[in-house]
Amino acid sequence: MIDKQILLLPGPTPVPPRVALAMARPAINHRGPEFAELLHTVTQGLKKVFKTNNEIVILTASGTGGMEAAVANLLSPGDKALVITIGAFGERFVKIARRFGVEAEVLAFPYGQAADPVAIAERLAQDKAGEIKAILVQHNETSTGVLNDIEAISRARGDHPALLVVDAISGLAAADLRVDEWGIDVAIAGSQKAFMLPPGLTMLSLSDRAWQAVERCRNNRYYLDLKAARDYGIKGQTPYTPAVSLLYGLKEALAMLEEETLEGSFRRHACLRDMVRAGVKALGLELLAKDQVASPSVTAVKVPAGLKPSAITVPLREKHGVVVAGGQGQVKDRVFRIGHLGYVNHMDILSGLVALEEVLVSLGVASLRGAGVAKALEVYQKWKEA
Amino acid sequence: MIDKQILLLPGPTPVPPRVALAMARPAINHRGPEFAELLHTVTQGLKKVFKTNNEIVILTASGTGGMEAAVANLLSPGDKALVITIGAFGERFVKIARRFGVEAEVLAFPYGQAADPVAIAERLAQDKAGEIKAILVQHNETSTGVLNDIEAISRARGDHPALLVVDAISGLAAADLRVDEWGIDVAIAGSQKAFMLPPGLTMLSLSDRAWQAVERCRNNRYYLDLKAARDYGIKGQTPYTPAVSLLYGLKEALAMLEEETLEGSFRRHACLRDMVRAGVKALGLELLAKDQVASPSVTAVKVPAGLKPSAITVPLREKHGVVVAGGQGQVKDRVFRIGHLGYVNHMDILSGLVALEEVLVSLGVASLRGAGVAKALEVYQKWKEA
Repeated sequence: MIDKQILLLPGPTPVPPRVALAMARPAINHRGPEFAELLHTVTQGLKKVFKTNNEIVILTASGTGGMEAAVANLLSPGDKALVITIGAFGERFVKIARRFGVEAEVLAFPYGQAADPVAIAERLAQDKAGEIKAILVQHNETSTGVLNDIEAISRARGDHPALLVVDAISGLAAADLRVDEWGIDVAIAGSQKAFMLPPGLTMLSLSDRAWQAVERCRNNRYYLDLKAARDYGIKGQTPYTPAVSLLYGLKEALAMLEEETLEGSFRRHACLRDMVRAGVKALGLELLAKDQVASPSVTAVKVPAGLKPSAITVPLREKHGVVVAGGQGQVKDRVFRIGHLGYVNHMDILSGLVALEEVLVSLGVASLRGAGVAKALEVYQKWKEA
Repeated sequence: MIDKQILLLPGPTPVPPRVALAMARPAINHRGPEFAELLHTVTQGLKKVFKTNNEIVILTASGTGGMEAAVANLLSPGDKALVITIGAFGERFVKIARRFGVEAEVLAFPYGQAADPVAIAERLAQDKAGEIKAILVQHNETSTGVLNDIEAISRARGDHPALLVVDAISGLAAADLRVDEWGIDVAIAGSQKAFMLPPGLTMLSLSDRAWQAVERCRNNRYYLDLKAARDYGIKGQTPYTPAVSLLYGLKEALAMLEEETLEGSFRRHACLRDMVRAGVKALGLELLAKDQVASPSVTAVKVPAGLKPSAITVPLREKHGVVVAGGQGQVKDRVFRIGHLGYVNHMDILSGLVALEEVLVSLGVASLRGAGVAKALEVYQKWKEA
């Protein structure tokens, strides 16, 4: 059959044709007035998505570069950070912090669960001396398909002076995140997620308190130096040559998000999540996360007993061109992940479920009844009527 | 007049239409077999351009990220590096080294001159104890338009154990660089230069000795960790999500370089350099660098007495859409720079010279005779016949 793929990944997202075309615009001088205008436009657009008046900086790097930038610009060697982990990306924050000499105290919750704000509040209440300089936490944990309640975590912080650093890479624009209202000091985003772009950009918002921490910070950084990014930003430039083609794409993607509206994007992602969950359950498979904490970006599905994730992911791709992700971290061999993030609509999900059913039937773990698509369509019809 | 630009910059280069189209290919899973094939293909292609059998890693970052990666992965805090500076990018190496706790000893040559291999040999001869762990140097210095003689610098190193780290970002594929033959331990490239791509990728080759230094290195790095990039590379992946669209572009650009041949690219860039130099001199302006050390990528032109660079660069852009660069570093207010790098041909140069002559005439510092294009055409004709 002719080679066409349906990408159901927790990033990179499929790229909308109009974004791909925007990225093919001719090159410009990144030290000239055209670039200054482009940078200004996308920065203003990002503020609406982050729901912030904070300054935003854009770095040419993938999301992990943004996570490192947050650590290396805010925390000095010997500083203590409370790292909330609910999966592999929380663990990545621990690794980055330790590489940069930061004392990472881990508050871990099991894979598949969200962080408990009460436990966070209790730990912070013990820290009378204010030794914890920052709380590092995921908005959406990509490895497990769990959405943390950042608003509740922010409330749990109470009067504790720790900075709240949120990795919102796979969550922002798919689920609500209110940087200013919730008092988020640093929020980190990535281009290849709900922003519908190829990978290569990470964007960070910093509160005034965060910028003060940047001024005091003694850690090593040059390429990911946030102060340099801010200072050049005032001139309409970046300190080092930026990924201009991706910035053109970002401008177009922000226009698309504005047309759909942010709330529309949240509703669409929630609908796609519910379609996947209903469809997969109807096919007899179990989900890693409970409904109450389920991610709007990605759903981790438990592999039937006796099978490896690749028993499902490889035939999905090879027979039907449906590309889903394997497991990651502690659940690497126990789940596969269906992404529903970015430039994805209900037909992508229905197609994916059809293919999944066919693969499960050929593995002998489901019978051919169209059960998955039927349930998913029911969810979609209700969403349409709501 | 309708909005069209002629980019005569030392990067970003104009992007060839076929490269722009390649970058609009649908997204793929960066953990899947399609990506592994893409990464393998571009890595093999890069080895030919670097003229090396060394392993090559590709990072999602601009060239400065590659410079930082070289420093932070090879040199530990307290280590000494000999940093050869002939302009602003040499000075950037000094800053990066110092930010990462490396003792940077500067061997500076005046702006507009190349590094003197004899002086380097003399300094290394004094270092009986072998305290200098690495020599950091530019292949092509973008701020001054000077090409260093890397082969001679490598010979000047002789038996000294220091690693030779070459920032070849704006030089590679425009001028010859023989990584293996010249014993270059680390060579750093960037996508937006002779590779004709948008910015966002940096590529590094590392010798076995360089990898051994990576193993010993105690400096902080995570996002730019070269060992992680190598280890994932063996699996056909990158440790963190890569800029996939740029890698598709790189594959196409490498195909174009293969069609032109590397030697053809060197000859073309040398021809464009000679056209610019002859044309600019014929217009009565002076050049910063002597012919013997002139860069094939960019030419720094002295601004006539009493004028600022913007007196020339702004009308060039606003009246004619010809985009050249201002000055940088110590010569920021004394030169403007005409790039002739990447996807540029003789007509771009002739057009640029026509516009430059018009601007100089309107400033009263030249008379309208077509002198620049005439001289440049002479150079071009000779090149065609050679």
